Amino acid sequence: MRPLMFKNGTLKLIDQTRLPGETVWHEYTDYRQVAKAIRDMIVRGAPAIGVTAAYGIAIGINNITIDNKSDFFNELNKIAEEMKYTRPTAVNLFWAVERVVEKAHELKERSIEDIKKAVLAEAVKMDMEDVASNRKIGQYGNELIKYKDTILTHCNAGSLATCDYGTALGVIRAAHEAGKNIKVFANETRPYLQGARLTAYELKEDGIPVTLICDNMAGYFMYKGEINCCITGADRIALNGDTANKIGTYSIAVLAHENKIPFYIAAPISTIDFSIKSGKEIPIEERDISEVTHIRGEKIAPDGIYVRNPAFDITPNRYITAIITDKGILYPPFEESIKKIQAV
Amino acid sequence: MRPLMFKNGTLKLIDQTRLPGETVWHEYTDYRQVAKAIRDMIVRGAPAIGVTAAYGIAIGINNITIDNKSDFFNELNKIAEEMKYTRPTAVNLFWAVERVVEKAHELKERSIEDIKKAVLAEAVKMDMEDVASNRKIGQYGNELIKYKDTILTHCNAGSLATCDYGTALGVIRAAHEAGKNIKVFANETRPYLQGARLTAYELKEDGIPVTLICDNMAGYFMYKGEINCCITGADRIALNGDTANKIGTYSIAVLAHENKIPFYIAAPISTIDFSIKSGKEIPIEERDISEVTHIRGEKIAPDGIYVRNPAFDITPNRYITAIITDKGILYPPFEESIKKIQAV
Repeated sequence: MRPLMFKNGTLKLIDQTRLPGETVWHEYTDYRQVAKAIRDMIVRGAPAIGVTAAYGIAIGINNITIDNKSDFFNELNKIAEEMKYTRPTAVNLFWAVERVVEKAHELKERSIEDIKKAVLAEAVKMDMEDVASNRKIGQYGNELIKYKDTILTHCNAGSLATCDYGTALGVIRAAHEAGKNIKVFANETRPYLQGARLTAYELKEDGIPVTLICDNMAGYFMYKGEINCCITGADRIALNGDTANKIGTYSIAVLAHENKIPFYIAAPISTIDFSIKSGKEIPIEERDISEVTHIRGEKIAPDGIYVRNPAFDITPNRYITAIITDKGILYPPFEESIKKIQAV
Repeated sequence: MRPLMFKNGTLKLIDQTRLPGETVWHEYTDYRQVAKAIRDMIVRGAPAIGVTAAYGIAIGINNITIDNKSDFFNELNKIAEEMKYTRPTAVNLFWAVERVVEKAHELKERSIEDIKKAVLAEAVKMDMEDVASNRKIGQYGNELIKYKDTILTHCNAGSLATCDYGTALGVIRAAHEAGKNIKVFANETRPYLQGARLTAYELKEDGIPVTLICDNMAGYFMYKGEINCCITGADRIALNGDTANKIGTYSIAVLAHENKIPFYIAAPISTIDFSIKSGKEIPIEERDISEVTHIRGEKIAPDGIYVRNPAFDITPNRYITAIITDKGILYPPFEESIKKIQAV
């Protein structure tokens, strides 16, 4: 269940705003439209938007007709900047953009055609690497899952948030494939309902028993002893392990801590921002208030009130039991375990 | 903004499933329809359903044409039982039903007509007492609110949940009337959206600045220091102070505790169930799963998945800073303060 496909110069994205009701693929041959698709959440999930941005740049520079190399690089930088500022929180986006820009600069002595080809090849490589990363995350994370565990997850950190298999759902898939007879509770994840629409759909398709609940019910089921562990993805991880993820993640982590339930983050190393010391430095995107006041076009609130819509929150490191990465499981103190993995 | 009105033998209820989009009043002259209105949440909120049930019984017995007193009391008991089992969690419902039944039994030597009149008079009295109770709760609770506080509330414990003024919103109204320049954050309160639909609407009508958020955002704003205290209503309070309230209340209380923010319950004494020692004895209603899978008729989840829909949760006493009642503010240890108030 890949959310994106690239073939013959065209990027195809499944419209995640319309799943699971409708399966609609859009085609992109203009980088500005790719940027808009990221902003509008046609594609979402930190790893998926990173690779989408890389393909977007490949599309953008492929359409450049200038043959002066300095002008070409100016154009490339312009495209990269636009791609980079589509969304502010997920670091994979900046990481992916920088990686393809760097690749282009490495080859700056070569022909423009060669650079265009190399940037596309880099995007394809990142796409494939992401799937391999998720398989690795699944393999490591599976060690933490016990037979018959019931796992709570929030938002969608699945195939649809990545290039395939998923991070948090990658761990869940690996445990399921290992025959562990697991069950999953999926928070619906207001305002965008990624849990109800995407996670429930992905797990059902894979035959993994999934129970949908509203976000405010998670604490109740933890307190009742019906949840054995929690796993979510991440949009950015600071050097001390503080983690930005979908709004509501912080609350789950606090509730898990209070109820002595392990709380795991599952994310590739590319989600770690080695340039920031703590979560305080992570900007939190506030999105359009209509996401809160309307659900699928239906108005649910009166006019004339204030509304806030932060899309992410920060979970302080003290609530995180472990971070499951593609290079192994990191345990507290994260300052040390993250430093060690950076050195590898 | 009263949710119920009784005049000339007819009970009128505002349809709270359709607010704030439409203001529709239904008329009831048959107790079975009143019971259905409670079950279907046309009327909701522990104090409001208590008084509605009392009016329902008055309507029910008024339609009894039997003139044999023993048969009359059998009918009365049948009506009372039906009213009592409309919803299982709120204790005010049982309290109200028992109070009118007791009134009838007190007058069992009098004529059936006298008994009918006395039951109706008791319902009217409870209606008026509830408004006075809420004013008292507001007056006591106001002492806990500081100038310029931002108060988080969950669900709707307002005029619409009571006979007028509200419990949690009664405290907020009293603080506003006292010129304290307060602000309110209202959790939308999935699945039924009482916060988005009813609380936001009530506060806006009263000119109290209200900010609507999704339930999973409350922790984020607490952590950021934007919330000074939390106040919710209650559906049932045990002798040790454990409190059943709308699903999600437990999570807010834990998050408030973790962030060192006071968490208050506001409820009349009739919400205390003096027959139970702890929250473990409170049954939690699980409602139809379509409330989770559909929002205002719009389907938001795939078919073929499991869904859970507990309507309430229990907040253990250790997370509650104080319980604001119509007889004063109760502080921990609640075993003692509740025992003291029971003796009064």
